[in-house]
Amino acid sequence: MPSIRVGAVNYLNSKPLVEGLTEFAGDLDLSLDLPSRLADQMAAHELEVGLIPVIEFLRAESYSFIPNIGITSHGPVLSVTLFSRVPWKDVRTVSLDEGSRTSAALTRILLEHRHRLTPQYRQLPIDEPAEAVSTDAVLLIGDRAMKACLPGFEFAYDLGHEWNEWTGLPMVFALWAVREGVDLASSEVAFAQAKQLGLRRAGVIATREAAALGLDAGFCRRYLTNIIRYDLGPRELAGLRRYHELAADLGAAPRGTNLVHYHRPHLVESRQR
Amino acid sequence: MPSIRVGAVNYLNSKPLVEGLTEFAGDLDLSLDLPSRLADQMAAHELEVGLIPVIEFLRAESYSFIPNIGITSHGPVLSVTLFSRVPWKDVRTVSLDEGSRTSAALTRILLEHRHRLTPQYRQLPIDEPAEAVSTDAVLLIGDRAMKACLPGFEFAYDLGHEWNEWTGLPMVFALWAVREGVDLASSEVAFAQAKQLGLRRAGVIATREAAALGLDAGFCRRYLTNIIRYDLGPRELAGLRRYHELAADLGAAPRGTNLVHYHRPHLVESRQR
Repeated sequence: MPSIRVGAVNYLNSKPLVEGLTEFAGDLDLSLDLPSRLADQMAAHELEVGLIPVIEFLRAESYSFIPNIGITSHGPVLSVTLFSRVPWKDVRTVSLDEGSRTSAALTRILLEHRHRLTPQYRQLPIDEPAEAVSTDAVLLIGDRAMKACLPGFEFAYDLGHEWNEWTGLPMVFALWAVREGVDLASSEVAFAQAKQLGLRRAGVIATREAAALGLDAGFCRRYLTNIIRYDLGPRELAGLRRYHELAADLGAAPRGTNLVHYHRPHLVESRQR
Repeated sequence: MPSIRVGAVNYLNSKPLVEGLTEFAGDLDLSLDLPSRLADQMAAHELEVGLIPVIEFLRAESYSFIPNIGITSHGPVLSVTLFSRVPWKDVRTVSLDEGSRTSAALTRILLEHRHRLTPQYRQLPIDEPAEAVSTDAVLLIGDRAMKACLPGFEFAYDLGHEWNEWTGLPMVFALWAVREGVDLASSEVAFAQAKQLGLRRAGVIATREAAALGLDAGFCRRYLTNIIRYDLGPRELAGLRRYHELAADLGAAPRGTNLVHYHRPHLVESRQR
């Protein structure tokens, strides 16, 4: 049986979803990489399945997703923060972390749709310290960003919280995308098994990962257990649909992408697209 | 003019409420101490005002509180965690951190009211490592507890989240209690001014306090800015009233305590009690 190539972002919050994944299904070949590279590898047919940011899922237009598994927040997310020198209403210039297009689009959604602003954007190069930016606000994301304190910025807006407060819905950051026509066969269940194991081993994962990240193990456990949520049910999908509409309005995602659950191709006669 | 003696718990989450407090009102004499000692000092008339845990406020029965200021959470609180080897329904024995009676009562409320359990409790002495307890679950609170990872415990229940999920209401942990008959006069406004300053200086406070706590400054900022909330409005008071009822049902607080806003004694003809 040929192996199924699986890619995931190498972030702390993805660890519980890949815990033991290759042990539950021997034909899965797992690699960890940057979000943008994963999307490219999916497009180039170098991966069959990818734990990818939702904006990449929407942009690809042709992927389905494994049901009930996602990286989401229902309030503060702690790892996606818009640091600002001024309150929302006065933000005129914004630096955007190159790391995630999903959070960059979320920033635009909140600025342009929620607060009806039309600020100027620039990219924050990965090697430029955020403290040094001259813009009113700077978006930081991911593991490195969790450690950012930036006392010089009076405001630190948690975009998971801001999204939830505005829409009343969870924010979905990533999900398991499956390339069109791929048959996971019996390996499909491994993704659910890995998630279940990962959630129960959150303390072990936190202990293991904290030192390499330069973060406190207790904080990592709270982040994985009490902040990030891994279910993808009706509420989360409603949040994802709302995000999709708003991102499409800004031209940050194509309008037509359907959200389709993965089904084994031979089990369904016609797959809705 | 005699000074007004003010006490506050010496926790990270109380720092934004005391930032600059004595500068805004020169007649305030601020001291930081343990929660239980503050309650004793209030009772002994050694303090006029105390930032005290809500259970101490309820137990005293005769205090009013400064309006619109509290230490609350609207979901995960990160610093009040019940680590458990088993899921809620199987918890039979619990060790309770000596630090806070408010969170100990919250633990009992969730176990006995929400989950309809009657577990056995024991005190966790301050010098006993939580990893070593033989009970099914252990409650840890406060700054020290935020660093606890406890990978040997599969479950880490955030009691702020559990409370919010169950009741739909915020959890109030502490407020500014004013002893009966005390006249704060023009100093009253200093408490609101300090809060306002503290919220805007959260990044500065986080940077300053993190090293001493052995916590990451970025995490401290997120905790102060995105997790702990400092307003005490109608929703928070509804949460406090619900907590009061449930704690009283368990005999953990007297039933009759009224929640009364502080008013300058000479400005009101009769104060509702």
